[in-house]
Order: sequence, then C-alpha cells, then structure tokens
Amino acid sequence: MARIVMKFGGTSMAGIERIRAVAERIKREHEAGNEVAVIVSAMAGETDRLVQFCREASSLYDPREYDVVVSSGEQVSSGLLAIMLQSMDVPARSWMGWQLPIQTSDAHSSARISGIDKDILGEAIAGGQVAVIPGFQGVSGDGRVATLGRGGSDTSAVAVAAAMKADRCDIYTDVDGVYTTDPRIVPRARKLAKVTYEEMLELASVGAKVLQTRSVGLAMKHGVPLKVLSSFEEGAGTLIVDESAFEEGEMEEQLITGIAHDKNEAKVTLTAVADKPGSVANIFTPLADADINVDMIVQNFARDTGNTDVTFTVPKDDLARALDVLEGAKEAIGYREIASDTNITKISVVGVGMRSHAGVASTMFQTLADRGINILAITTSEIKVSVLIEEDYTELAVRVLHTAYGLDAEDAA
Amino acid sequence: MARIVMKFGGTSMAGIERIRAVAERIKREHEAGNEVAVIVSAMAGETDRLVQFCREASSLYDPREYDVVVSSGEQVSSGLLAIMLQSMDVPARSWMGWQLPIQTSDAHSSARISGIDKDILGEAIAGGQVAVIPGFQGVSGDGRVATLGRGGSDTSAVAVAAAMKADRCDIYTDVDGVYTTDPRIVPRARKLAKVTYEEMLELASVGAKVLQTRSVGLAMKHGVPLKVLSSFEEGAGTLIVDESAFEEGEMEEQLITGIAHDKNEAKVTLTAVADKPGSVANIFTPLADADINVDMIVQNFARDTGNTDVTFTVPKDDLARALDVLEGAKEAIGYREIASDTNITKISVVGVGMRSHAGVASTMFQTLADRGINILAITTSEIKVSVLIEEDYTELAVRVLHTAYGLDAEDAA
Repeated sequence: MARIVMKFGGTSMAGIERIRAVAERIKREHEAGNEVAVIVSAMAGETDRLVQFCREASSLYDPREYDVVVSSGEQVSSGLLAIMLQSMDVPARSWMGWQLPIQTSDAHSSARISGIDKDILGEAIAGGQVAVIPGFQGVSGDGRVATLGRGGSDTSAVAVAAAMKADRCDIYTDVDGVYTTDPRIVPRARKLAKVTYEEMLELASVGAKVLQTRSVGLAMKHGVPLKVLSSFEEGAGTLIVDESAFEEGEMEEQLITGIAHDKNEAKVTLTAVADKPGSVANIFTPLADADINVDMIVQNFARDTGNTDVTFTVPKDDLARALDVLEGAKEAIGYREIASDTNITKISVVGVGMRSHAGVASTMFQTLADRGINILAITTSEIKVSVLIEEDYTELAVRVLHTAYGLDAEDAA
Repeated sequence: MARIVMKFGGTSMAGIERIRAVAERIKREHEAGNEVAVIVSAMAGETDRLVQFCREASSLYDPREYDVVVSSGEQVSSGLLAIMLQSMDVPARSWMGWQLPIQTSDAHSSARISGIDKDILGEAIAGGQVAVIPGFQGVSGDGRVATLGRGGSDTSAVAVAAAMKADRCDIYTDVDGVYTTDPRIVPRARKLAKVTYEEMLELASVGAKVLQTRSVGLAMKHGVPLKVLSSFEEGAGTLIVDESAFEEGEMEEQLITGIAHDKNEAKVTLTAVADKPGSVANIFTPLADADINVDMIVQNFARDTGNTDVTFTVPKDDLARALDVLEGAKEAIGYREIASDTNITKISVVGVGMRSHAGVASTMFQTLADRGINILAITTSEIKVSVLIEEDYTELAVRVLHTAYGLDAEDAA
C-alpha cells in the first residue's frame, strides 16, 4: 500500500469521455489498496475562456475577482470527476481549496501555497475515499479564493504530496514523459527513464514544457518523487528524483541528459556604454526594480575608445517595458544607442554528468561552429551550458547537438 | 436613501456587453445614495451546459457534487460583475454563499435557505460597497456548496432582501413586467402596474413564468415589496405587494387580474372504481407517498352500477411514475381500466377582486361553452377558478376569456 497523489492536466480532463478514462486509472490505483488524492486542472480551453471574460470586462481587473471567476474551471472538473468515480463504485468526494483548507499568500492570481491542513484530507484518504481537489487554487488570509497563476495545478499536486508525505506524485499529461529534446525537432529523441530535479529544472525553464518549474523546485525541496506519465497511453513515464535515488555509476554513463531551446527571450544591446565604475549597475538596477528578469549578459570592450557594448536578454513579454526603463535611465547609464532583437533562441545542453566530465562546452561550441552557427552570448552553470543564437538556426542547432552528444535513439527503436 | 436588492437573470448577464448595461443600472442606484446588494444568475445557457456535464458523467449523480459543478455559473458572473463595477469606479466585491455565509438545508440541489448572516453584508453595503452575490446557492450544514434548484436566484434575492430588511427587491428580467396574460397569445394583453402576492402566486404557478413561485411566497411571508423590471428597457415594471399597499377601492375596480394557462399537467382516469369507503384514499395515498402532486380531482358517479370514474391531474413529468404506482395498487383500489391524456391545458382566471364579486365562475363557464369548449375538470380557490380543457383550445380559450373579463387593452394603446 502506498499513499499517492495523481494530477491530471487540462487535455486529460477535456470532455466526459476523457474524464471517464481518468477515473478508470484512479480506480486501478485505488483498487490496488493505495490511498489516493487527485488534483485536477480545468477542462482544456476553459481557463482561457474565463481569463478572456475578465479581460473583456476590464483590462485592469481586480485579481481577487479574477480568481473568483477563473478558479471555477477546476471546481467544475473536480465535481465531475467525483461524480464519475462514484458511478464506478469508487468512494470519492471533491474538496475545494477553502474547504480543506489550502492556505495561500494574499498575492491573488499568483499566490503561493503557505500551508495545507492535512488532518481532513488524511482522514478522508485513510478511510478509503478518493479526495478530488481542484488544482491551481486555495484560500488567502482574508478568506477569499486565490489562484496560483497559470500552470499552478502541478504546484498544487506537489504541495499536497509534500503535506501528505505521499510516496509519489504522478503527473498525467498529454506527453508520455520527458525527452532528450523536443521530438518534433528531433524524431530520434529518446524518452528519459529518470532525471534529477536539477536537470528537470534546467530542462523545464529552458523550454521542455512538461512540468511547471515551480512544482519541480517544490518537489526537490520536499523530496517528493515525481513521475510524468501520459493520460492517453500506458507506459512507465519519466521519474524525477534526487541524485541519491540513482544507482552507483548510473549517472556517469550519461554525459548530457537533454538539449533544450527557448524562444521566449529577447536580446538588448546598449552601445558605447561609458567604461566607468557603476555603469553596469546603472543598467541592471532599474531593470531589477521593474521586476524584469535579466538572463544572459555579455560585455564587449572596445580597447581604443574606452567604451563598451553591453548585451543581455530579457523575457520577450517584458521587452517593451525594459526598453522604456532603459530610455528613462539613459542619462544615468550614459550609452549611445539601444538596439533590440527578438529573433533569437537560447540553446542549452543539460546534464548532471558534466560535473565530472571536461569538454562539454567546447564540444558544443565546436559543433555549432562547424555548421557556421554564430554564438551571440554564453552562460554556464554547474549542470548546464547555454548559448544564444539566431532563431533561424534553432532546429539545426538542436539536431547537430543531439547527435554530437550521442543522444540519438538507435535506428531499431 | 434606501436599501435595495437588485437581481439580474441569465439573459441580463449573457455576455460582457449585457453585464456592462447591468453595471450601469447598479451604478445609477448607487450614485443615488442607496445601499445596494446585487444577486446574479449564471450567464444564459451556462447552467444548462453544466447540468448536461453532470448528466453525461452519471445519470445518478451525487447532488453534492452536482452543486459543486453547477454553482460555478453564478460564481463566474458575480466575479465579472464586480470587475465591471470597479471599472466604472463603483466600489464592489463579490461574496460567495460560503463567505457570508448563506446557510441552507442539507437537501443538495434543492436546498432551502435557513439563514443569512447579515453582519458582514450589512457592514459592506452600509460602507458604500456594492455587494455582488451569486444567486441560487449557499452553504449547507456540512460546509459544502448547496444549490436551491433551478430558478433559485429569485429566492436568493428575496431571502437577502428579507434578511437585510431591504426597502425593496427589484427583479430584472427579460420581460418588462407581469401581464394580464401571455402577450404571445393575446397581443392586447396589458401590463399590470400592481398585483398582490396571492395573485402573483396563482399566476406564476399556473404559467406566467416571470418569477419563481418560491420567491413570491417568501416575499409574502416577509413582506418584501417585489418589483419586476426589464433589464433591456426603461419602465416602471410591475410591483408585487401586500393587499394593504393598495389604495381604497383600487382593488375592487378590477374584477380579474389575469388569465393563466399551464400545459404541464397530465390527466389520469380510473374507470369503474368500486364505490366503497376508502377507495379514493387507496388511490391518492400511494401517489402522495411517491411524492406526486395531485391537482384537480373529479368523480363521476354511475348511479346504475354503483361504480364511479375518478379523474385527476398530475405533473406531466411525474405521469410515468404515477401510472406505475397505480398499476401496483390496482388490487387495493379495485378499478377496471386506467387511461391517461397529456393533451390537456389548465386555464385559470385569477383575481383578488372575485372575493367581492359573484358570477366570475359562471362567466367563465358560459364563455367557454359559447365557443364549444368542453370543460374536463374544475377547481376553485378564493381568488382563482381553474378549468381543464383540451390542449388544442388553449389559445382560443385564453383570448375569449381575456375579452370576456374586459382585460383587453384599448386599441389606441
């Protein structure tokens, strides 16, 4: 017997027939004698519809009222799943965030879970009842419904699993696991049986859109074993665990775990920035104050002029705001011109294995150079090397790197 | 300054532009210095969609889970209206049934309001905030969302008005008031400026589908003045009040207030029922036990045989069940045959004025007889005479009675 949390995303809940298939999976786990709590997303398309209503009502909507509207999507799917489970003779009931309660911060529409009362929930599932919980929501300190931001249902699932000390948290989605890279770009991409939390964080944040980054971080913090599985077919999925869960030598076999790409960054270049103390701080302090996340930074010194060009990336969605902020700080910074480019991609090679292997970065640079792909910026971390390239080269770069690091599946596969 | 409750139905809330028009009406009342609480229905079509989901999930759905699903429609419209009001600089917030709370009985999907905490609500509206409350729902004793049954938003509005001792409760709908009869049948039907609760109860329960019967009964009990108004055009609407609110003589001027018709009844006839003590009880006791509401009853004695035919009506929706019950009780009752007919209509003339006027019933019978319309059954109350006729004669009967009682509007109107 195990205590498990199962989470089903929007495409898994899209329509009554899919909800029936979801209920059948749950019934199997329940009949195997497990204690089961289920987290559900809204039916696919529903949250978009509700968000659109709020935007049409007012571009400056009150996030507390937005939460009232948007949280209804998961409320509906949790009630429907409970009805479906009962019709299959599985004891089940829905628990709204305010009923358990799932306490959140007061940052409506992007709240954080601050606590989950595990007494009610623990009693329910220990008594053999399947608890169905709407994801993405809880109740804030002032007793109002609060949502966690888009994709928050993964985070709900992990938070419930952590609070309940679940043996595992299974995330059912429309893909059957985490791949070495996007299979639409590289048909020979391989499904990974096991990755570490750290690798998953790098893969997710740089483009492998399987799990919400926040949920992986939370799972890592609480040591909740995560599994990504398909709602639509049988399969072992991908296990996301701590390094300690790997066998001796299992991790070293694999130099690179995956190749990710991210088209959501924009490049900004300030030319002829005065090379004086504080000028770089004058660039990045106002951006930080405006809550704009700067990722890659490159400085090119021009020895003859004493000036320097500064290039960095910001999320595409924040580009317009970033340019505003920088125009406003032009005098303080002291630059000649500002240029921006959204036709760029960040390519990352990720792998815990690179800690104990030299030459990962040089293989990357050489492989790209051989194909004439220009590198615009570089960042590295302990388990990742990222480069910025022109967007047109995205697929080519991903394919040649996938081959270069030996990730291609066997032809016979 | 007055304290008013405003209620907007599904067609009034159908889409963002209509919600904007609703918000403008509320703003006007608020700017006039009134304390305002608003009850909203789900956007038109939304509740049907949600009910359909539940039925598809399971024909035997748990009403507690049904309530979780179906209550979301009003939750959405209340959040959207609050957003819209705020965008017009009207201070507003939504209050879910569980937040106030609006306490209900445990009869999920057809719960009754048992109490409303007026402290929170009173403080909010006295402070100048418009309180937006989803209709049709509250929270049951076990802390779960409970709905009041279809059309329950009218009841929510009256219950809130009663709890808050509101000066009036304005029901905005897609018609501009209560008419002497259905204007689709009689184009010269007149809008009534004022009717009594008792008349409205008879008119509503027999077919003038403007207000939910339960809400009128509740308004009568608590003396809440109701007003029916159009959301879509300006106008005085129809006031529904106690008889004491009528001027001296105002009521006597009008013999008959309206003509209603109801096609939702079915006729059942048992032939050759043994004319012995208890045989009628043997018919109606099992029907009552099965919660089937019997309306009109006629007994025809056949002097020569000592037997009698018994005819009565039941709601069309309950006919199949009623026939089952009667088949099962055949031996106990002792009848020869059972026959049923759904092609019937109940026509009612309603008016408090008939208390002080003789001849209302005979005018009705004579008018129908003059047109060759056969009367199948009759019931009367202090302010109503109802007859059962063949369905094909419905429109003709309504028209000739409307003229006979002098209800037709002037040509110049």
